[in-house]
Amino acid sequence: MAAFTSARPGEPTPAISDAHKGPTGVLEIPQRFLMGPGPANADPRILAAQSLPLLGHMHPPFLKIMDEVQQGLRYLFQSDTKYTLCASGTGHAGMEMAIANLLEPGEKIVVGNNGIWGTRVCDMADRFGAEVVNLQTAAGTSFSLAELTAALEQHKPAVLFLCQGESSTGVHQSLAGVGEACAKNGTLLLVDTVCSLGGVPMYADAWGVDAIYSGSQKCLSAPPGAAPLMLNDKALQKIKSRKTKVRSYYLDLNLVGDYWGWFGSRSYHHTGMVSMWYAMREALAIVSEEGLEAGWVRHEQAHKALWAGLSEMGLHPFVADPKDRLVTVNTIKVPEGVDWAAVCKNAMDKFSVEIAGGLGPTAGQIWRVGLMGYNAKPANVELVLAAFKDGLTQQGFLKA
Amino acid sequence: MAAFTSARPGEPTPAISDAHKGPTGVLEIPQRFLMGPGPANADPRILAAQSLPLLGHMHPPFLKIMDEVQQGLRYLFQSDTKYTLCASGTGHAGMEMAIANLLEPGEKIVVGNNGIWGTRVCDMADRFGAEVVNLQTAAGTSFSLAELTAALEQHKPAVLFLCQGESSTGVHQSLAGVGEACAKNGTLLLVDTVCSLGGVPMYADAWGVDAIYSGSQKCLSAPPGAAPLMLNDKALQKIKSRKTKVRSYYLDLNLVGDYWGWFGSRSYHHTGMVSMWYAMREALAIVSEEGLEAGWVRHEQAHKALWAGLSEMGLHPFVADPKDRLVTVNTIKVPEGVDWAAVCKNAMDKFSVEIAGGLGPTAGQIWRVGLMGYNAKPANVELVLAAFKDGLTQQGFLKA
Repeated sequence: MAAFTSARPGEPTPAISDAHKGPTGVLEIPQRFLMGPGPANADPRILAAQSLPLLGHMHPPFLKIMDEVQQGLRYLFQSDTKYTLCASGTGHAGMEMAIANLLEPGEKIVVGNNGIWGTRVCDMADRFGAEVVNLQTAAGTSFSLAELTAALEQHKPAVLFLCQGESSTGVHQSLAGVGEACAKNGTLLLVDTVCSLGGVPMYADAWGVDAIYSGSQKCLSAPPGAAPLMLNDKALQKIKSRKTKVRSYYLDLNLVGDYWGWFGSRSYHHTGMVSMWYAMREALAIVSEEGLEAGWVRHEQAHKALWAGLSEMGLHPFVADPKDRLVTVNTIKVPEGVDWAAVCKNAMDKFSVEIAGGLGPTAGQIWRVGLMGYNAKPANVELVLAAFKDGLTQQGFLKA
Repeated sequence: MAAFTSARPGEPTPAISDAHKGPTGVLEIPQRFLMGPGPANADPRILAAQSLPLLGHMHPPFLKIMDEVQQGLRYLFQSDTKYTLCASGTGHAGMEMAIANLLEPGEKIVVGNNGIWGTRVCDMADRFGAEVVNLQTAAGTSFSLAELTAALEQHKPAVLFLCQGESSTGVHQSLAGVGEACAKNGTLLLVDTVCSLGGVPMYADAWGVDAIYSGSQKCLSAPPGAAPLMLNDKALQKIKSRKTKVRSYYLDLNLVGDYWGWFGSRSYHHTGMVSMWYAMREALAIVSEEGLEAGWVRHEQAHKALWAGLSEMGLHPFVADPKDRLVTVNTIKVPEGVDWAAVCKNAMDKFSVEIAGGLGPTAGQIWRVGLMGYNAKPANVELVLAAFKDGLTQQGFLKA
């Protein structure tokens, strides 16, 4: 081997340390059925798209893929807005992008907080200098339109945050009428759809939702790493007329939006996540090919099949009001005397099935079963039921 | 098909619009040789890793992959530090993570600015409320140790930023002696290695570099989307003793570091980018299997072969001082009377080869040729030379 000259030609060259050399060998991954609150298993067609060769982040064929992602998101959000894109990060990056851009320091946000996502939005909004009104309701319940309207009228906030699918409690927040109430109070409606988008109905324009973010790894069956986002004209206007710069350069929608062609040109802002956006394009093609209604029906049927089986075993939903039950993340009360963690461990060890415990306000009280995207199908439901049956029999809750 | 019940049971259901339905069909990607400043072509072994099935972001086999990534980064950075990780975003996320965490509002940063990366750091540091000293030198040159030492002594900044490989100008910044000068002045040394890491020597511990970030899509041959980062003990101490919260939740190293096991436990902070981290694990395995020295030699040889061919055509380097020339991103003066864009277009149309123009201070004056990672090999060099020869012949600069 020819010796390399040095750090830069003429400079001293320390010895290379092999102390941390590694890893070596080709990566191998065990098969798992990811039936917790996410990530869900990715569709193999989407994984295959991630093995395609790279394009440059400003190459015309890649810009066409970005256009297709934007189109697919319009269909998914049910919105005519021009302003869709994917943040280059996970769902949390989408959340932070929304908060960092929609709020200026000192502005008020009312956070509908019925689980961990509201709590997290409170934290983020506080870090960006907003005035936070933490509107709470009990874990396992949703906000009524009357409660939300009262809060809007009292606080006249710049932004109202709601989480459509609260994955820590399994609650489906209704959005009907909320957009109208927000508009009346000069408030922008921001909705988290990380674990609901594609699994349950979303009609952004009809419902008057001003801004939405989501995640790639739930009902869209892609790997984690892209955060779909939309703004309507009103939300964009808010961002364009900010008096202060967005604190984050990486998430500044004035710049990121320009890379996505929102303003008629395309400027380099950061290097788009090439493989990840291939995956998103493929995920959205799958959504379009199936059709939204068929997808929603499939998720609902999986949910019903799951509960038919769980009820037969004597298990009960954590969410008391049937209207509030999220079909994509199902929360199940742990019966008295049953070791929830042992049931999860048995499911993983024996069936390679992930069943999750609670999170935040529900830790130790519930199991969580995700039926999302590629996983929302009868075979997966059957596998989860078999894992519960086996675990509950071991625990003596079911007879052998 | 069974009808789905509604948005939530009992609520009105608007009609679904098919106005934006699409895209459809399986994604197809044309082959391109990405010989610009990045992304470079990904190694097929790394792309294959991205088609492996997902694991959960807190599953033990996935945590083992994160451990392997951290180990591989220690080898790559040549550091014994415990504190390595990948930010869940592109190189810009790594840059913002470093700036957001290492600086508190009102603290001073001296930015060694000889191209667009310094300019960008100035912007980011300003957004986070730091006091920015923009230390400039002409495009195509680097900073001497004497200049840097004088700035450190004058400003006593909290942080000194340097870009090891300035991709807009093709300059390789020397780091020899800088760490020592920083330590004497109570300054942390932060280095951008986005287009240099893996391609040219880096000895973080021996050189006293306190914090480094990089990108996945250059000399590491992975897709864009992960930003390798390291802190030494001193840099970590700075972050742990901050008086103000990091503005960004997503990039807060007190939290992200905890997910990566820096503090002895593992807390969920965000959903790790499963496929992307498979890719990083595989990229780092390839680095370890080849060995750092062999990789550096390979990059240097590709650079020499490129310049042997370019010089024969009568082309000249943009960077005057041979010591300052970066081997990974080569900058080439556009000769008088030659249409640089026509040469790039011909290379893409006829050879599927990306050759880039200048950026920022060098726009219109230079071409940029990346020889990075999987692309730093004789066949790619020959293809680039063939594309230049053809383009320059068309332009009448070379005889037919």
